Parts: sequence; structure tokens; C-alpha cells
Amino acid sequence: MNKVNLREKLGHIPDYWHPRIVAELNGQDVRLAKIRGEFVWHRHEDEDEFFLVLHGRMTIRFRDREVALEPGECLVVPRGVEHQPVADEEAHVLLFEPSATLNTGDVRDERTRERLERL
Amino acid sequence: MNKVNLREKLGHIPDYWHPRIVAELNGQDVRLAKIRGEFVWHRHEDEDEFFLVLHGRMTIRFRDREVALEPGECLVVPRGVEHQPVADEEAHVLLFEPSATLNTGDVRDERTRERLERL
Repeated sequence: MNKVNLREKLGHIPDYWHPRIVAELNGQDVRLAKIRGEFVWHRHEDEDEFFLVLHGRMTIRFRDREVALEPGECLVVPRGVEHQPVADEEAHVLLFEPSATLNTGDVRDERTRERLERL
Repeated sequence: MNKVNLREKLGHIPDYWHPRIVAELNGQDVRLAKIRGEFVWHRHEDEDEFFLVLHGRMTIRFRDREVALEPGECLVVPRGVEHQPVADEEAHVLLFEPSATLNTGDVRDERTRERLERL
């Protein structure tokens, strides 16, 4: 039962699009990620996904629209909905999602992380 | 699928210790609360509870220790563990917990909120 300082944990993340687990509860993960550039289009068949921007800005693209998020803004991407996270500059994001959630959803590519580390 | 601005939502909360739901996903709620003073000692028999301080400072007291949280710091209180949230000055907190979680856990008093509103 130790507290987690998000900024301190983010300092230990050296790479983009590679979420780390910082807390686990009720079968869900709290994850942190640094992002930059365009991620792969994907969807999570069985998991809703919560994004909260901590630093920087990101956009979540959908097939018919896009949502721009600034620090302190959040969005739930419902299960089954195809989306593409994008950030022009480095951004830091907190995620809530079931522990079973694969970062690239229904897609496998070089950014797929089968097993996430806990920071 | 609308984004939520946490600061804007907090502006609509007039009272302390009365969480509001700002997002729902995977059977869990993301809740916001303004807190000030001492809450009731309680525990959640079946739910782990995640606290993230957004503004101000809070302390979570346990029977054998306490944890002080500043903005950007978070803590999971495991199910079954008695705790008392406390804030000397107004603080703003984001909670992530199962939708069934009663704010006062195993205790009922005047601060118990049987049904939470969605902001």
C-alpha cells in the first residue's frame, strides 16, 4: 500500500507507446504511457478504455471524427470502437482499463506489448 | 463519447464528500469529489479504491499508519482495509472504483450517498 507519484513514475519511462502498470485494482490496471506520433488503428473487442492526459496534448481519431484532449481532459473509448491515438509532440497519458487489455487491441505489430511491466 | 474536462466538472460540485460520476467503463466509475475535513472511518468489503489527488492535499489514515498525498499522487486502498480520508484544506480527488462502491463503505451516516449523480 505505497503511494505512487505519477511524475516520478513517468521519469522511468524511456520509450513511446509502451504503457507501464502503476496500480492494479478490481481486475483493472492503472497504466502510464508516453506517446508521440501516430499509433496503430485498433479496437478492443471487450474492453472500454479510459484516457486522461497529464501533460501535453493528444488526439484520438475515430473513423468519423476526432477528439482533441488537453491536460486534465479525459475520454472513454467504448469497446469495439476503432480508434487511433495521435500526439504531435510528446504527451503523457494515464489509462484505466481491464488488466487483460492488449495495447494494440485486435492488431499485432511491432508495438504490441504482450506483457506489461509494473513500475 | 464526449470528452470530460475535470476542472470544468469540479466547478459544478458545490459540496464536500459527495462524489459525482464523470465516466463509466467496465463496471467501474470514474468519480470526482471535493473533500475537506475528516470523513468517516469505513471499509469497502469487496472493492479496491483508487485515489488520485488533483488539487490540494489529503491524507488517508489507516489504523496503523497514514499516507499523505499531494497533487499527482495516488494510492489504492485494498478491499477490507479500514481507512479515513482527511483534508485540512479543500482538496479535489479523482476516484476509480467499481460502480457498486458506496462512499461510506460499511458505515451509514449522514454523508452516505446511496445513488450518485453523473455530472
